[in-house]
Amino acid sequence: MKKVEAWVDQLRAILAVGKESEAIDFLLTLQPYDQAEIINLLTFEERQKLMPLLDDESLAPIFKELESDVITEVVDSIGGEWASGVLGEMSSDDAADLLGELEGEQVEELLELMETEDAQEVTALLTHPEETAGGLMTREYVTVKRDWSVGKTLEILRKIAPEAETIYYLYVTDAQERLVGVVSLRQLIVAAPETPVGDVMSENVISVSVGEDQEMVARQIKKYDFLALPVIDHNRHILGIVTVDDVMDVLEDEAIEDMSRLAAIQGVSSAGDLWEPAYQAAMKRLPWLVLLLGIGMLSGNIIARFEETLETVLTLALFIPLITDMAGNTGTQALAVVVWGLAIGEFRPRDLLWLMKREAGVGLIVGIVNGLLIAVGAYIWQGNIWLGFVIGFSLWVTLFVATMAGTVVPLILFHFNIDPAVASGPLITTINDIIGLTIYFSVATAFMNLLLN
Amino acid sequence: MKKVEAWVDQLRAILAVGKESEAIDFLLTLQPYDQAEIINLLTFEERQKLMPLLDDESLAPIFKELESDVITEVVDSIGGEWASGVLGEMSSDDAADLLGELEGEQVEELLELMETEDAQEVTALLTHPEETAGGLMTREYVTVKRDWSVGKTLEILRKIAPEAETIYYLYVTDAQERLVGVVSLRQLIVAAPETPVGDVMSENVISVSVGEDQEMVARQIKKYDFLALPVIDHNRHILGIVTVDDVMDVLEDEAIEDMSRLAAIQGVSSAGDLWEPAYQAAMKRLPWLVLLLGIGMLSGNIIARFEETLETVLTLALFIPLITDMAGNTGTQALAVVVWGLAIGEFRPRDLLWLMKREAGVGLIVGIVNGLLIAVGAYIWQGNIWLGFVIGFSLWVTLFVATMAGTVVPLILFHFNIDPAVASGPLITTINDIIGLTIYFSVATAFMNLLLN
Repeated sequence: MKKVEAWVDQLRAILAVGKESEAIDFLLTLQPYDQAEIINLLTFEERQKLMPLLDDESLAPIFKELESDVITEVVDSIGGEWASGVLGEMSSDDAADLLGELEGEQVEELLELMETEDAQEVTALLTHPEETAGGLMTREYVTVKRDWSVGKTLEILRKIAPEAETIYYLYVTDAQERLVGVVSLRQLIVAAPETPVGDVMSENVISVSVGEDQEMVARQIKKYDFLALPVIDHNRHILGIVTVDDVMDVLEDEAIEDMSRLAAIQGVSSAGDLWEPAYQAAMKRLPWLVLLLGIGMLSGNIIARFEETLETVLTLALFIPLITDMAGNTGTQALAVVVWGLAIGEFRPRDLLWLMKREAGVGLIVGIVNGLLIAVGAYIWQGNIWLGFVIGFSLWVTLFVATMAGTVVPLILFHFNIDPAVASGPLITTINDIIGLTIYFSVATAFMNLLLN
Repeated sequence: MKKVEAWVDQLRAILAVGKESEAIDFLLTLQPYDQAEIINLLTFEERQKLMPLLDDESLAPIFKELESDVITEVVDSIGGEWASGVLGEMSSDDAADLLGELEGEQVEELLELMETEDAQEVTALLTHPEETAGGLMTREYVTVKRDWSVGKTLEILRKIAPEAETIYYLYVTDAQERLVGVVSLRQLIVAAPETPVGDVMSENVISVSVGEDQEMVARQIKKYDFLALPVIDHNRHILGIVTVDDVMDVLEDEAIEDMSRLAAIQGVSSAGDLWEPAYQAAMKRLPWLVLLLGIGMLSGNIIARFEETLETVLTLALFIPLITDMAGNTGTQALAVVVWGLAIGEFRPRDLLWLMKREAGVGLIVGIVNGLLIAVGAYIWQGNIWLGFVIGFSLWVTLFVATMAGTVVPLILFHFNIDPAVASGPLITTINDIIGLTIYFSVATAFMNLLLN
């Protein structure tokens, strides 16, 4: 049994004997994520009983992790006033994310019931596009002045710590509220109490602008090993901070998006999209499929052009799937390596020549090995040595060209600033089919006389 | 021009007028990651001149980010004694990672030159398998006792802060040095100085055992939004901590690994593997290709079984690539969604029935749409309405079955505890080819009389 299910059983056993306050005590010994997982698994009635017994402060981190239909349910049934109290205790970014998952009416009701200041902060965050620094940031950051002493700063920090998203980085602003430095709590702890903050702070503050793409924000935090990154406007006024826990999802979501595109699925950009109903999921897969169906008619055309060859040596038809599959497979392999290298910033424009040379080498090796194997295989199967030669030679050339196509197509897209992940595996497969079939039937036609001997 | 190249130019301009100490001052205003990027781009002579001027403390975070051939070069040319001083200043996990990239001889020389205690810590870390909690952890954590007062703890923290990897989580151990609690610096800052640590600590410490797989460690940190996670042995003795910055790479590397396997490439498990020479890269792609070549012979066999049908209606050959491609494409789409959902823990065993129903719905929709389109297309192209029917109907059935195959195969693997990512796209494509061809030629044979009218 999974740990969370064991906890649910335990909680139900306590509730069964009517000891609700004991149930709450038990719940509070766990991490908020686990508390939320448990609440997600409870029944409507159990939630009705338990959740109003938790205080707003304990509920805030739980709400963040609840499934959205559970949130909608408890807001509806337990009431907007209760929910707005919890929202007020949440970080502004989590509150904004949560409201983003609810229906318009419920959102308006909750915003009206919230304290004006909290509601304004959340509303401000909701105006930023979801996939930007502004959409990720929280407003609960700490700013200090450079002339404050370390001792005074720590004294103030003690008071505001419960409200702040992180107290481990403090941002230093000048009289015009512009960002001029950053100091870590570690630096403050080590410094003598009378030292001014300006003496310990670092003036080289890495920041991102509010409209920056979320993947870029995540890469900056990852690159510099930061716990948080300040978000600024064009006047260097600090607007918020993005914390490391918020970007851990971003890189994985971006990976899912790249992967989905490689598999010819458009518009899957987060883990939540994996849960779509059949109709929506089909709509995200159909555009590529229909396009590929159209391109696929071209491979039919190529075979039609060689119909005479095929009629003379019908055995050639047996190897059509093998030639097209292998062309698609090597193309997909090359594509995957190139797209990922580009996506994570490992490959740069200066590496393109190296990459093409390397992939040419790979194409030659896999082409020769597979070409030889199939030549022998076809000879044994069909007893015609020239058939073996035609198929082996065609496969060798095809695999080389297919590997290069899988490498060059994404590089060209990248050069023209088109996301190389749109060059999906199935697209490369279809292109490589056409290349493979042309090579195969051309070679077969050229050696027709030998094939018939 | 990229920012780092501009910095290199600026640094060279300062060096050109012989102001080396000014060059160092300039370098020190930047982040360690950027300093390392600059040093990576310098010439051998420039590195010889600059690097000995930097003190060990500044060099430690730079070393972590340098390219491994640059490290080998400077250790060789500037000397082991100098390098061992820098290693001593590094976190034990970073030092171990760095030594892991050097040649055996250089490693031994450096370990001998390091202070005994440092060398022992690093050697201990080197014994843990790279992809486990032990391989990721650092030894520079802070432990406290539950009866210490908050004030005393903060006083001690002030002294050891420069050495610790993080001072934001402190781990509480009992008299037998077993892990019994955790307290955050935030909790200490807020608490009154005379409070005992035991009163503010949380007893519910989430930890991982030293042999735990690195992906599991990363998922725990991500799930609970932690900055670090303690690593324990079977007696609950704390052995080290894994910090959030160390696991940011893990999830991306695991994504690369899953993606590579989906694209039928074995053994690519980190960004560094993207840089392999052609021979090594080919060796990682060949095993699958050769296997698929073997399976691909089966599709030839299926066509051979229907050779009579094909001889009678040669036009059927034109649509072979289209049927196989489309079967592969829909299979890959379903596979990608299922494999990723399982990999990131979004899909659980209890969701399998829902998933199969959903994918059945998707298969029906994409099957009907594409089947209708190709029926019309084939009729217009070849002027035979029964050919249109045969192809359209076959494609419809094929796409439905292919979608189910792309869903069910990874689910079965998952059920038997085999990593579903080994069900590569090309494997599913090849299986679906065989299914598609069988359906296509069976339908065509059944309607043979009508086709010939």
